[in-house]
Amino acid sequence: MGDFLDNRAIGVFDSGLGGLTVVKQLMKVLPNENIIYFGDTGRVPYGSRSDTAIRRYAGQDVNFLLSNDVKLVVAACGTVSSVAPDVADGLPVPFVDVVQPAARVAAQSTRNGKIGVIGTAATIASGSFERAVHACNPEAQVVHNSCPLFVPLVESGWFDCNDPVVINTVERYLQPIIDAGVDTLILGCTHYPILSDAIASVMGEEVSLINIGIAAANTVANILDCHDIRGHHEHVKNHFFVSDTVRSFEQTASILLGENADFDVEHIDIEQY
Amino acid sequence: MGDFLDNRAIGVFDSGLGGLTVVKQLMKVLPNENIIYFGDTGRVPYGSRSDTAIRRYAGQDVNFLLSNDVKLVVAACGTVSSVAPDVADGLPVPFVDVVQPAARVAAQSTRNGKIGVIGTAATIASGSFERAVHACNPEAQVVHNSCPLFVPLVESGWFDCNDPVVINTVERYLQPIIDAGVDTLILGCTHYPILSDAIASVMGEEVSLINIGIAAANTVANILDCHDIRGHHEHVKNHFFVSDTVRSFEQTASILLGENADFDVEHIDIEQY
Repeated sequence: MGDFLDNRAIGVFDSGLGGLTVVKQLMKVLPNENIIYFGDTGRVPYGSRSDTAIRRYAGQDVNFLLSNDVKLVVAACGTVSSVAPDVADGLPVPFVDVVQPAARVAAQSTRNGKIGVIGTAATIASGSFERAVHACNPEAQVVHNSCPLFVPLVESGWFDCNDPVVINTVERYLQPIIDAGVDTLILGCTHYPILSDAIASVMGEEVSLINIGIAAANTVANILDCHDIRGHHEHVKNHFFVSDTVRSFEQTASILLGENADFDVEHIDIEQY
Repeated sequence: MGDFLDNRAIGVFDSGLGGLTVVKQLMKVLPNENIIYFGDTGRVPYGSRSDTAIRRYAGQDVNFLLSNDVKLVVAACGTVSSVAPDVADGLPVPFVDVVQPAARVAAQSTRNGKIGVIGTAATIASGSFERAVHACNPEAQVVHNSCPLFVPLVESGWFDCNDPVVINTVERYLQPIIDAGVDTLILGCTHYPILSDAIASVMGEEVSLINIGIAAANTVANILDCHDIRGHHEHVKNHFFVSDTVRSFEQTASILLGENADFDVEHIDIEQY
């Protein structure tokens, strides 16, 4: 870390609220940085939409963050990172997605060379994690499955690992991955850490679960150092923006952020960007 | 039915694909009418959004249908019918929602005066069905519950009444309604008829299930007669429009329409309306 101080905020966006699990990790790794977060709650979920729609929405999300003078953009959304990585092209600031960092960790930490990936329908259809794992470890065997009900379960507050609906749903989606004998599982959607107790109980202790938010937060810290753009705020103030009303955001935010962070929330019209 | 023939189409809209269960009923009751359907697949689901967002989206949906010169507008969406009924104010054509017709049928057909209502979070929070039932039958007792996971289950293709996840989820949402001893249950969302086998097996044979699409289709037929605006097409041609891509629509449409109807599908940009 150099002497220069860049106190501009880190910009983070997601299709909705799942990206707050990445914000939570950023706050741990970079406790003196301000964060501007945009959650597209008026158009969530992205994971079941077409690539065309996801690309258009991601472009608007990035434009909104840039209009707030952020120093780095994080796509805290597995679907955008998978389907629209070209949203990074030509950006005036560094860009971090949630696919590449997690894939590197998985490729380096697997012992038996068998890696599982779960994500939204759009993420899995894109093959993004598989390509990123093979870029680091061409020998790795990757098995994947889409889990379209995980996001609605989390957003409905159903994630207790003793809940039979939760466990049955997790078992059904993970069975092909268990059958393949993986020792590492990438939770390829920022909502999934909320289900990690249930997923761990189904996968068993010997399988490592990769939280894409932790991998992305470490990458952000490295990039701030490389570019010498770390900031230092004594009193951090985070600004969250949503495309639906503020009230509906606050209802779910506490589940995902998991602690009492200091932030304010404001509504914006994302179609203007 | 008079001698005048009005061959303009009936306009139908929904937050996504659920409204196709209403289209299915309209095709049965009015087999010689053309239908123009708009499904807001780029912004589905409405049921978990704020009232502000739902009202704005519903206004755009109606504007799109009117721009296609329809002779009647059907809000084939329990959420819009509940949260934004004022979208009908000042319309140049008749308007039918899916709350009033079903509430009338339930109020008239209950034997023990106890009626259950299930719907999206926004629908149940609005109290729309309860008010509409009480307008017909002030003595009726109404018990309700929101079922936020039903739409994602249906859209994921999980609705088999032998599926333990489906049955467990249905049981959990319906238990308070069973406990109240209702003899009539309004399925207050156009997706729910797809789950009717599972719902019937949980509720038992003696409880009548009210399909809001059937009630709405009968009301549409009555209004066409009252206004003398029935049409007669020898060869019916239905036009469907969606705000996400056409491909994602076709994947789910067959589940909801349940038969090989003659239609074409086109993408539109709903933010222009």
